[in-house]
Amino acid sequence: MIPDEEFIQSKDVPGPTKEEIRCLVMCKAVISSEDTVVDVGCGSGGLTLEAACRARKVIALDKNPEAINLTRENLEKHGYHENVLLREGDALNILEDLESFQVLLVGGSSGDLSSIVTKGWSKLAPNGRIVVTSILMETRVEAVDVLKKLGTEPDVVEATIAKGKITPRGTLMMGRNPITIVSAVKGN
Amino acid sequence: MIPDEEFIQSKDVPGPTKEEIRCLVMCKAVISSEDTVVDVGCGSGGLTLEAACRARKVIALDKNPEAINLTRENLEKHGYHENVLLREGDALNILEDLESFQVLLVGGSSGDLSSIVTKGWSKLAPNGRIVVTSILMETRVEAVDVLKKLGTEPDVVEATIAKGKITPRGTLMMGRNPITIVSAVKGN
Amino acid sequence: MIPDEEFIQSKDVPGPTKEEIRCLVMCKAVISSEDTVVDVGCGSGGLTLEAACRARKVIALDKNPEAINLTRENLEKHGYHENVLLREGDALNILEDLESFQVLLVGGSSGDLSSIVTKGWSKLAPNGRIVVTSILMETRVEAVDVLKKLGTEPDVVEATIAKGKITPRGTLMMGRNPITIVSAVKGN
Amino acid sequence: MIPDEEFIQSKDVPGPTKEEIRCLVMCKAVISSEDTVVDVGCGSGGLTLEAACRARKVIALDKNPEAINLTRENLEKHGYHENVLLREGDALNILEDLESFQVLLVGGSSGDLSSIVTKGWSKLAPNGRIVVTSILMETRVEAVDVLKKLGTEPDVVEATIAKGKITPRGTLMMGRNPITIVSAVKGN
Ligand SMILES: Nc1ncnc2c1ncn2[C@@H]1O[C@H](CSCC[C@H](N)C(=O)O)[C@@H](O)[C@H]1O
Ligand SMILES: Nc1ncnc2c1ncn2[C@@H]1O[C@H](CSCC[C@H](N)C(=O)O)[C@@H](O)[C@H]1O
Ligand SMILES: Nc1ncnc2c1ncn2[C@@H]1O[C@H](CSCC[C@H](N)C(=O)O)[C@@H](O)[C@H]1O
Ligand SMILES: Nc1ncnc2c1ncn2[C@@H]1O[C@H](CSCC[C@H](N)C(=O)O)[C@@H](O)[C@H]1O
Repeated sequence: MIPDEEFIQSKDVPGPTKEEIRCLVMCKAVISSEDTVVDVGCGSGGLTLEAACRARKVIALDKNPEAINLTRENLEKHGYHENVLLREGDALNILEDLESFQVLLVGGSSGDLSSIVTKGWSKLAPNGRIVVTSILMETRVEAVDVLKKLGTEPDVVEATIAKGKITPRGTLMMGRNPITIVSAVKGN
Repeated sequence: MIPDEEFIQSKDVPGPTKEEIRCLVMCKAVISSEDTVVDVGCGSGGLTLEAACRARKVIALDKNPEAINLTRENLEKHGYHENVLLREGDALNILEDLESFQVLLVGGSSGDLSSIVTKGWSKLAPNGRIVVTSILMETRVEAVDVLKKLGTEPDVVEATIAKGKITPRGTLMMGRNPITIVSAVKGN
Repeated sequence: MIPDEEFIQSKDVPGPTKEEIRCLVMCKAVISSEDTVVDVGCGSGGLTLEAACRARKVIALDKNPEAINLTRENLEKHGYHENVLLREGDALNILEDLESFQVLLVGGSSGDLSSIVTKGWSKLAPNGRIVVTSILMETRVEAVDVLKKLGTEPDVVEATIAKGKITPRGTLMMGRNPITIVSAVKGN
Repeated sequence: MIPDEEFIQSKDVPGPTKEEIRCLVMCKAVISSEDTVVDVGCGSGGLTLEAACRARKVIALDKNPEAINLTRENLEKHGYHENVLLREGDALNILEDLESFQVLLVGGSSGDLSSIVTKGWSKLAPNGRIVVTSILMETRVEAVDVLKKLGTEPDVVEATIAKGKITPRGTLMMGRNPITIVSAVKGN
């Protein structure tokens, strides 16, 4: 995993997803070097970069042009831009255009999660994976609901990570926001 | 419980202990209106104020004069100063001087936890309670070890609290540092 | 707080709510000796008993007759039955009949949480408190939603508690299910 | 990751480490196909199997013969036994014999963690990684202490995972024991 501090960050763009959560998302996504991955809401590029070093191709999209720029900067910094296509725009519109792919990562959805997941699911290749990361209580539930409606039983993991900070007095446990990862595998 | 935001805070003094943790500490301390409570490392007065409205008398001590001042300000703001004695100085020295008491709260100990707990335990009245709050991995273990050596089996609770922040997009779960509360009841 | 192991338990009835969660619920409920408390879904009586030793009167209801019996047994075991009225039946029907009260605890709702909270809110006295405890992801969101619709901004606490088990090898941290406590105070 | 339920389990052997924790351990271990991995306290083979499909060679050891047998069964079930050497015996003795390796996983240590980590560290190749998984409060601290003494600043992650169980009533969040992962990278 790329260490958190090696990402260029910006006040105006969320992310990058922290190392331990990126790790769990990658586990659930099971990306192989044959796969095309779509990263919806690429933000700072946290997940885009991890996908880029595992997949054949990554399509990273965000409606915020600053997120697209920041993801580009991070890709360049780490030398991963060749297999990544960046697209600025709304998730639903862009998904509409795409051919089928193996993995859909959803890190942002601004109130439209059900439509994005439904549209994405329809484009998933057989045995494709969808992984939704959420920090909002409501998004978790929406992700579970829509996946159940699509006929699958999602895997739900809430991960609460604390990092130890080594200080002269001892190891201070620093809490992080709990993140929920909802994922599912499409049948074949 | 006093809401977190009603405490005067200072950059130079830790605390106040967050509402939910104060609540758990108070549960473990089982303070009655007959009790004398000693608060070692009163910091911002988070626990001192909660003890003050339950106990007959509170002795709050801190080696940092700014903590003593801040605790005084918070006591005055909430009108609780009559039954609280503030003492600036090192825990071990002050405990040495004290008569027996019913409850010992330890929120700070700077490397000297075993001695503080041992000294405090010797001054605890029959059925007295000791409650150690810790954010350091090492302190938890030291608290458990010294209490086991004193012949008791401590209660150990690690509390990881996330607070929901209501936003227009949904309820953002904000993580807090995990806190460990180690407590024990003295026999009679 | 009453220790967990001092409750009579039954395979067929959920609860009792664990000590640390009962403690947090009591903090949010701020029960005084003048208050009438309604406990919706009393289960094993975990919250009923805690309310009984703080309130003037408790009305504990459950649609499951075995829960009513178990709560009665636990009340008797701990000697608290005088100020507790047990009522078997559906929450919504029973709430309909009641006069106004100061505190509503909701520990069970079987799919009808919004109606129960809305009905309960309408019966809450000025400055009354409502506290919903939930183990289901969906219930948390429903509780937040309905309270927002009722014009209040709920307090949301997710509590993940681990208890240390003292063993010869060391202190084993035993995880518990994360519980979310959604609460609100009615204006006056 | 291999799903938890695909491991053969035994009442007499701990493990397998749960999927999400195996995932985090693998992230910290950064195993490449050139690496030799030593798994101290292989238990049910949870980490052994994950290492086996990433590394050139795995040496899995346990002092409990039943753990060795169970790990062998799990390796056979999943078809990974060719690059795994199983050794029954005490960690310290076996480590003594080994040539240098790239990754040391420590999942069990029965009171001897400092010696095992110190011995293992001395055998780590340049840029080698050590990853200690612990469920005991004391082990975490011991792992941090010994790694600090060896001149490195360990990475400390406490992971509290809850899994959602989809039920007709909703998504029940099931807590797991918090696990702490202490890791370090040797300089070159
Ligand atoms: N409907 C939508 N279409 C495209 N992007 C969206 C969107 N709704 C939200 N987003 C984007 O989703 C992002 C969520 S933050 C994502 C962080 C990212 N996973 C990282 O690790 O860096 C934001 O940048 C936001 O602009
Ligand atoms: N040996 C010692 N003697 C006295 N005070 C000590 C001490 N070691 C640490 N402290 C004090 O312990 C405090 C810990 S912070 C305590 C916060 C407090 N419980 C609150 O809720 O506001 C610090 O103010 C520190 O100065
Ligand atoms: N609509 C409804 N009306 C009445 N009781 C209900 C209900 N829906 C669920 N319940 C009850 O809610 C309970 C939830 S379990 C509550 C446990 C309790 N707080 C304790 O500490 O012991 C169950 O006993 C269930 O029968
Ligand atoms: N000093 C020592 N030498 C060898 N094995 C040891 C040891 N101390 C403890 N162990 C072993 O460490 C194991 C810890 S359980 C490990 C579980 C394993 N990681 C899995 O995923 O399946 C136990 O099987 C125990 O027998």
